Amino acid sequence: MRLAPRNRAARAASKARSGNGDARQATLTIRVDFGPYGYLGPGKIQLMSLILEHGSIRSAGKEMGMSYRRAWLLIDEINKIFRAPLVEKQMGGAGGGGARLSDLGQEVLRRYRAIEQACAKAAMDDLAALRTSLAIQPAGPKTRSR
Amino acid sequence: MRLAPRNRAARAASKARSGNGDARQATLTIRVDFGPYGYLGPGKIQLMSLILEHGSIRSAGKEMGMSYRRAWLLIDEINKIFRAPLVEKQMGGAGGGGARLSDLGQEVLRRYRAIEQACAKAAMDDLAALRTSLAIQPAGPKTRSR
Repeated sequence: MRLAPRNRAARAASKARSGNGDARQATLTIRVDFGPYGYLGPGKIQLMSLILEHGSIRSAGKEMGMSYRRAWLLIDEINKIFRAPLVEKQMGGAGGGGARLSDLGQEVLRRYRAIEQACAKAAMDDLAALRTSLAIQPAGPKTRSR
Repeated sequence: MRLAPRNRAARAASKARSGNGDARQATLTIRVDFGPYGYLGPGKIQLMSLILEHGSIRSAGKEMGMSYRRAWLLIDEINKIFRAPLVEKQMGGAGGGGARLSDLGQEVLRRYRAIEQACAKAAMDDLAALRTSLAIQPAGPKTRSR
């Protein structure tokens, strides 16, 4: 059994990869820039999403392969961007307490996801055209560098 | 005399920075991911745009503060993504010839810009809401790290 990809772009990409060996795909990644305040991109958003899911900074960071310290520094950076913290530590209890998204944190996460979805929809036709302009096969590993 | 910022988001950001000292801004940066083929982001697109403008890889790279070698490697990476080169070298002439965007290169650039504009429009309301959720003032330099 396969897990269903989360959104239309992921489904299309999955379909493109399977079966006929066509690896061509074109998807959008967005970042919201706040100038001197910093930015929100896929990494910070995934971390927030995992904190919502797990109720723990440590567990969320672990799932992304980062140390507790690295996860906490990212959260600290996120919290300073906005007028109130997006992630709140909860004190006490066995294991030293967890963490949760504040109301503002949940709103910011929701708006970021709404932007992602609105953009994927708005860009759909141009993305499809770019996909069909790709080479028949991807070149060697060198071109995959990010 | 001030140069007019290129788009609505830039104008809004510029307005936000001037006058009343409100530094709050929220703009979108997009990247198109092609999986194993690589990606197109703001840097490669700016380089293509400058080659269209200057007709020279060297001049385009220089304006972005990169060496000819670095600019050429990026172009080589871009060219291998698609079914035909986006940037073509023109041989001969004084100075060793220039470079131009192919028809496909111009189409890809146009579609990327169209995606940027469509996304900025689709995200406008959520971006405005995120902007008003920012802190009154940006925190210290530490939070500005990218």
